Amino acid sequence: MKFTINRSAFISQLNNVLRAISSKTTIPILTGLKMVVDQDKIVLTGSNSDITIESVIDASDESYELSVEQPGAIVLPARFFSEIVKKLPDKQVTIEVANGFQADITSGTAKFQINGQDAGNFPHLPEISSDKNITLPNDVLKEVVRQTVIAVSKQESRPILAGVHFTLQDGMLTAVATDSHRLAQRKVALQNVESSISFNVIIPGNSLNELSGMISDVESDVQLQVSENQVLFIFGNTHFYSRLLEGNYPETSQLIPTTSDTSVELESGSFLASIERASLLSHESRNDVVKLTINPDENSVQISSDSPDIGTVEEKVATTGVEGQELEISFNPNYMKDALRSFGQATIKISFTSALRPFTLVPTEDQENFIHLITPVRTF
Amino acid sequence: MKFTINRSAFISQLNNVLRAISSKTTIPILTGLKMVVDQDKIVLTGSNSDITIESVIDASDESYELSVEQPGAIVLPARFFSEIVKKLPDKQVTIEVANGFQADITSGTAKFQINGQDAGNFPHLPEISSDKNITLPNDVLKEVVRQTVIAVSKQESRPILAGVHFTLQDGMLTAVATDSHRLAQRKVALQNVESSISFNVIIPGNSLNELSGMISDVESDVQLQVSENQVLFIFGNTHFYSRLLEGNYPETSQLIPTTSDTSVELESGSFLASIERASLLSHESRNDVVKLTINPDENSVQISSDSPDIGTVEEKVATTGVEGQELEISFNPNYMKDALRSFGQATIKISFTSALRPFTLVPTEDQENFIHLITPVRTF
Repeated sequence: MKFTINRSAFISQLNNVLRAISSKTTIPILTGLKMVVDQDKIVLTGSNSDITIESVIDASDESYELSVEQPGAIVLPARFFSEIVKKLPDKQVTIEVANGFQADITSGTAKFQINGQDAGNFPHLPEISSDKNITLPNDVLKEVVRQTVIAVSKQESRPILAGVHFTLQDGMLTAVATDSHRLAQRKVALQNVESSISFNVIIPGNSLNELSGMISDVESDVQLQVSENQVLFIFGNTHFYSRLLEGNYPETSQLIPTTSDTSVELESGSFLASIERASLLSHESRNDVVKLTINPDENSVQISSDSPDIGTVEEKVATTGVEGQELEISFNPNYMKDALRSFGQATIKISFTSALRPFTLVPTEDQENFIHLITPVRTF
Repeated sequence: MKFTINRSAFISQLNNVLRAISSKTTIPILTGLKMVVDQDKIVLTGSNSDITIESVIDASDESYELSVEQPGAIVLPARFFSEIVKKLPDKQVTIEVANGFQADITSGTAKFQINGQDAGNFPHLPEISSDKNITLPNDVLKEVVRQTVIAVSKQESRPILAGVHFTLQDGMLTAVATDSHRLAQRKVALQNVESSISFNVIIPGNSLNELSGMISDVESDVQLQVSENQVLFIFGNTHFYSRLLEGNYPETSQLIPTTSDTSVELESGSFLASIERASLLSHESRNDVVKLTINPDENSVQISSDSPDIGTVEEKVATTGVEGQELEISFNPNYMKDALRSFGQATIKISFTSALRPFTLVPTEDQENFIHLITPVRTF
C-alpha cells in the first residue's frame, strides 16, 4: 500500500472519521482508523460500535491531489496518526505499508514509522438493505435534531429515553424526546416522500449530537435509510451509521395538555436573558427554582427567585400578551433555558393550566409543528 | 452607599480585580470583593493573601459615567456579584447599600438584593514604604517574565525555586529561575536608574503569571516598588501587590558552562516544529526523550525518538551552522519546547559539552543577555 495526498484535505476527512473513534473502548482495534486504498479512492472508517463513520476520498476530486501507487489496507492508531499528520512539515504526505503492518509516514524531512494492525480484523460495517429511504434538506434535519435532542434523558435508569423517537407516517415525520420532566415534539410534512414509506425508530441522542456537528458545515441534502437495528445518514462523501435503541418508546401524545387557563406571549430571546439572570441566584440555592407570577388583570408577568443566604432577584418580564387566570408557578430554570434556546429568536406562547400541571411553549407563528412541554416544581 | 456606573466599563475593572480572588481560600472574606466608594472615586480590592489587586475607578474618567450619590463601603461575594453585573439588561447599573450589609443592584427592569459583609473586616493592604522604586517599560517587563517564569519549579519540595530571583545592581536587572533541570536567565541594563538602588528578591512564579496577563493589554510603563516582604507593581489605575518568597536563592552563576565542544545554529521556530513532531512519539513512550545526533563533518543534525510498541520518528534538522565534535544527546522534549518558545522567532545557538552535561541556548544576535540551560537525560 502506498499513496501520496494533500495533507490539509486529508486532515479534514480524518477529522470527520475521528468523531466516531473513542480512546475508551472495550474493543482495542476500535481505537484504530481503518484505511482501505484502491486505485481510484481511499475509504476511511472509524467506529465506536454505536456509531460508524465512513469517509470516501475520491481521486477524481482534485483538491486531494491523490496519487495511489499501490492499493492495500491497514488499521492505524487513530488519534496518534492524525496528530502526526497534522504536525507534518510539508504540503503533502506519503503513507506506505511496505512490510507487515508497519506504516511509513513521510513528509518533507520528517519520517515516522508506526505500528498498525491487520485491516481484516476490523469489525465489518452493518449492512443496510432498506427500501425505507428518504431525503431530507440538511437544515430541516439540523433543526429537528436541535429542537428535540435537548429533551433526551441523561439518566441511565430508562435507556429507551436516551433516544429521540422518529416516526414517518403518511409523509409526516415526527420526532419526540422526553426525559419525563420535559418533552419536545417536532413535526415536518415531507415533500416527495411516497406515502407507502413508514418507519418507527429510536435514534440515540449521542448519535444525533455527533451527526449535527458533522452536517453543520455540509450543504447537501441528507439521505436517511432505516433498517431493523441501524440507521444510515448519507451526505457528501460521508456515510454515518448509528445503531437504534431497541424497545417501545412510551406513548407521549396524551401527555400534551390541550386546554389552558393562563397564557403569555413573549419574545423568547429577551425572556431567555431574564431567566439567565434569575438563575444566577437560583443556582446558588439548594432547590434550583425560579418563580413566575402572572397577573392578567394588571397585564404583568414577574420572574423571581430567592435564596435566604445569598439574596433575592425580581424582574418584570416584557410580554406582548397576558390572558386568563392569575397564576404563580415555579420551575427549573435550566429546563426553561434549554427550551427557549431551541426556539431561537421568535415570539412564543406559553400556556398554563395550574401550578402543578405541565405547561407548553409553542411558536406563535406555527403552533402545530413544534411544542415543548415542561413540568413545574412543587414549592408548597 | 449609592452609585450609578456604566456597566461595561465597570465590568472591565471587576475582571482586573477578580484575578486575585479565589473561591478556594481559607479566609472566607477573601472570596469577596471590597468596594470603597468616595465622592470622586471607587476603589475595588481583591486578594488571595499571595496577591492583592487594587483598581481605582476615577470619576474624572468620563467612560465610567460614574455618579456617586452616597459614599460608603461593602464587601460582596466576588464571582457571584460579577456574574450578575455581566448579565444585567441595561447600559448602566446602580448599586446601593441602604440597610446593613445588603446591596441592591438595579439595572433596567431587573433588581437583585444580595448579602454582603462589613468592609471593615477585609484584611488591610500591605504597606509599602520604599525608596527602591524603578520604572520599567511594559514590554521589557513582559519579556523578562515570559523568558524566565517557564523555568520556575512546580515541585513543592523546594519552595524557594517556585519564584524568579530578581536582582538589581549597578543599573543591571537580572532575573533567574531554575527548577534544577533547566535554568533561564535574563539581564536588562536599565536606563535612568540611580546606581545606588539595588535589591535582591524572589517573586512567586504564580504572581508573575497573573501580572503578565494583566499588563498584556496595558500600554503604560510599570512602576516597581520593593519592600522587605512585598513587591508592588503600579500600572494604569491598578496596584498589583505580591508577597515575596523568603529565604536565599541558590547561587546559579556557576551552573552555566562557559566552554563548549559542539555547537549548532538554527532557527528556533522551525526547530520547535521538529521537536513538536518528535515529541508526539516520545510522549507515547515511558521515558519521554528525544535524541539529537550531531555530525559536524557532514554538517548534519538529526532528531529522533523511538518507542518499541508504537514506532519511530527521525527528521533531518535544518541548521545554519554545525561546529565541533560529534555528539549524541537526549533530552526531555517539553523542556526544549518551553525554551524554544521563549526565544520567539530568532536564530539561536545551542552549545554542548558532552552527552551528560547541561547545554545552553542563546540568541545568536545577543548572546550576553538571555541564556537558557537544559540538563540532558542519560539514556545509556
